[in-house]
Amino acid sequence: MPQPVELIIKNADQLLTLATATPDNPLGIITQGSVAIGRDQVVWVGAEANLAKEVLVTESTRVLDAQGKVVIPGLIDAHTHLIFAGSRADEFDLRNIGISYQEIMGRGGGILATVAATRKASKEELYRLGVRRLNRALRWGTTTLEVKSGYGLSLEHELKMLDVIKELSAHHPVDLIPTFLGAHAIPEEYKGQREKYIQLICQEMIPSIAERKLAIFCDVFCEKGAFTYDETEQILRTGIKYGLKAKVHADEFSNSGGAILAADLGAVSADHLLSAPAEALAAMRLRGVAAVLLPGTSFVLGLKRYGPARSILAQGLTLALATDFNPGSCFTQSLPLIMSIACTQMHMTVAEAVLACTSGSAKALALPDKYGKLAPGSPADLLILDITDYRFLAYQMGENPVETVIKEGRIVIENRHLV
Amino acid sequence: MPQPVELIIKNADQLLTLATATPDNPLGIITQGSVAIGRDQVVWVGAEANLAKEVLVTESTRVLDAQGKVVIPGLIDAHTHLIFAGSRADEFDLRNIGISYQEIMGRGGGILATVAATRKASKEELYRLGVRRLNRALRWGTTTLEVKSGYGLSLEHELKMLDVIKELSAHHPVDLIPTFLGAHAIPEEYKGQREKYIQLICQEMIPSIAERKLAIFCDVFCEKGAFTYDETEQILRTGIKYGLKAKVHADEFSNSGGAILAADLGAVSADHLLSAPAEALAAMRLRGVAAVLLPGTSFVLGLKRYGPARSILAQGLTLALATDFNPGSCFTQSLPLIMSIACTQMHMTVAEAVLACTSGSAKALALPDKYGKLAPGSPADLLILDITDYRFLAYQMGENPVETVIKEGRIVIENRHLV
Repeated sequence: MPQPVELIIKNADQLLTLATATPDNPLGIITQGSVAIGRDQVVWVGAEANLAKEVLVTESTRVLDAQGKVVIPGLIDAHTHLIFAGSRADEFDLRNIGISYQEIMGRGGGILATVAATRKASKEELYRLGVRRLNRALRWGTTTLEVKSGYGLSLEHELKMLDVIKELSAHHPVDLIPTFLGAHAIPEEYKGQREKYIQLICQEMIPSIAERKLAIFCDVFCEKGAFTYDETEQILRTGIKYGLKAKVHADEFSNSGGAILAADLGAVSADHLLSAPAEALAAMRLRGVAAVLLPGTSFVLGLKRYGPARSILAQGLTLALATDFNPGSCFTQSLPLIMSIACTQMHMTVAEAVLACTSGSAKALALPDKYGKLAPGSPADLLILDITDYRFLAYQMGENPVETVIKEGRIVIENRHLV
Repeated sequence: MPQPVELIIKNADQLLTLATATPDNPLGIITQGSVAIGRDQVVWVGAEANLAKEVLVTESTRVLDAQGKVVIPGLIDAHTHLIFAGSRADEFDLRNIGISYQEIMGRGGGILATVAATRKASKEELYRLGVRRLNRALRWGTTTLEVKSGYGLSLEHELKMLDVIKELSAHHPVDLIPTFLGAHAIPEEYKGQREKYIQLICQEMIPSIAERKLAIFCDVFCEKGAFTYDETEQILRTGIKYGLKAKVHADEFSNSGGAILAADLGAVSADHLLSAPAEALAAMRLRGVAAVLLPGTSFVLGLKRYGPARSILAQGLTLALATDFNPGSCFTQSLPLIMSIACTQMHMTVAEAVLACTSGSAKALALPDKYGKLAPGSPADLLILDITDYRFLAYQMGENPVETVIKEGRIVIENRHLV
């Protein structure tokens, strides 16, 4: 029976549902496809030819014509460090002429430089910076993103960051999913007393953040120079005890056991994974841990190595691609650019890259099954792209094909402009 | 004595003149800098404090405030294949899953696929596509670009392409510098008769194009699978005889002697150079041949090798960076993105990358000395960037900082929009 709808996008050259995959049509593409939206949800998806029969268009229904265009679900960025003050443009030059990221960290640069700037910044300043960055993300088609704390590294400043994330999520169209990353680095004032800092995380920060419901996830940077396997386990077990789901910055520069630990703990995702051994991927698969790859970071750091995308896909793990947006190792907010890097450097097809920025990243954020897809019941988060073939998303490297963005049924970018 | 001016951009946080380089200030940066424009030229550049004394502002002078912003010369893209029909999105996927560019060429894909589509296209169609692409280039800050023919490969269709380039340059704000690249590939109909095709190039195409003044440069794709050293020499010597300056696609996939030949012939530039031996670079330096590197192409082709930027800079050659914009091996028009790739993958500083997209590329196009700079007498081609430090151009990978574009004294993009 026809149902009345508020918004229709009709007649797309390609409508990527990502919901009805077959081997011949892995993206569930409907040609001359239409999608009907009621309130904040998709209520109908199908071929243009069936639209009139199955959907009741009223006088108040707004209709957007997507002829010559591609429609896809809104992109989901599963790993960002969106909130920070200051910049690290100086380090960009230093690193490019041969000084390593670890060496810069060792000199008190790197993360700790951003911690100093972020501690100095007021909530209002961080909020203002956040809005600018979310506007930019939205222009690139990102409608949901994960954001980590971790530039506060004290109870006061971690809470400040997480408060700002909460405020932004409440007031900006983009949905923010908060992750507590107190274990991002050992702050200056705990140098030589790492046990004390870990105590602070476990005994004060996690209980306080859990009580205020300021985070969904707890994450640890498990890496030589950051946190050990044992420290990571202690922190994540505490987080889990307090109801936070686990994520791990795992095996980025060296095999530190992070991916194996993610599997042991039943974490939602393990991220980076450049140095993860095959048995860790197998363990992740058994426990349903999603793999989040961040190829922009390999690229910016000038590494020749990238995450093992082909092994991950061959083994049937859930794969997400994310920006890792941060002021040190990857200052980009463009998931289309990340797709280009993933395709050319990790040998992914554009179809695989699109899945990894939508339904794959939805799983890496433990979102319900209908997220990152266009099916009845999906959130009405979708993009109209000014291209006739979805492959241009990654093929036309660096360009922004996003013309219109719909978030929860509301047009928030139209013809490239914020509305 | 003060002189009246029509347009002033004042008070930039950083004004990059690129004209008064010192070891401490290689970009000739003036802080709180201003630039005054009369007609289509820069007439004065200096510190804000001296503006009132040295420049006569009248009622009709338009003043743009660049506080909190960076001003640089318009970018110059020294190597593009801007004019073509069709796309090669299918090849993008094929290549990324492991089929090489040369293999795709061997199958009759690659360049010849674009030749077939471009031959079918009318002048009007190519013109329309050209305008779209030039608008995009302008939004990325490119105010002058070189364009090669080479998707016609018959007298009729090479002339068609060059006519379109001439028309576009006459009507679009961006200046196009035309290059004849009949020796891009051996067309289908000359398969097995390459001598005949080379004869056609030398005896019909070059004379005809020179007579109509449709090209400044003559270029040859000197590479295994394309044109040999001897063929390249024959074609370029013919071009030179007819008044065309020489350029060479040299030593991209293998050392074919292209760079040495460029030096022997006194070519204006040798481009690509991934496999150029040290002695070729030395010979280029002696003869003043500019090196044009195209790191976007290495990136898109998934090569781990890039052009030898550090050797080129160490030896004191002129270095230009360009997009190589084309539908096969690099579908981007963003010089800022090319700068990001150059910095992270070829170990260049942002300052070196900026020089290579301005004064360096001006030299690689044999433009007069004041091009690619901001000094009295320079063409009034300049950009206002919405960043406070020029390094964000490459550091903020993938983003577009271009806010306002001035071409020959006229504002053509304002607050990101074509005017």
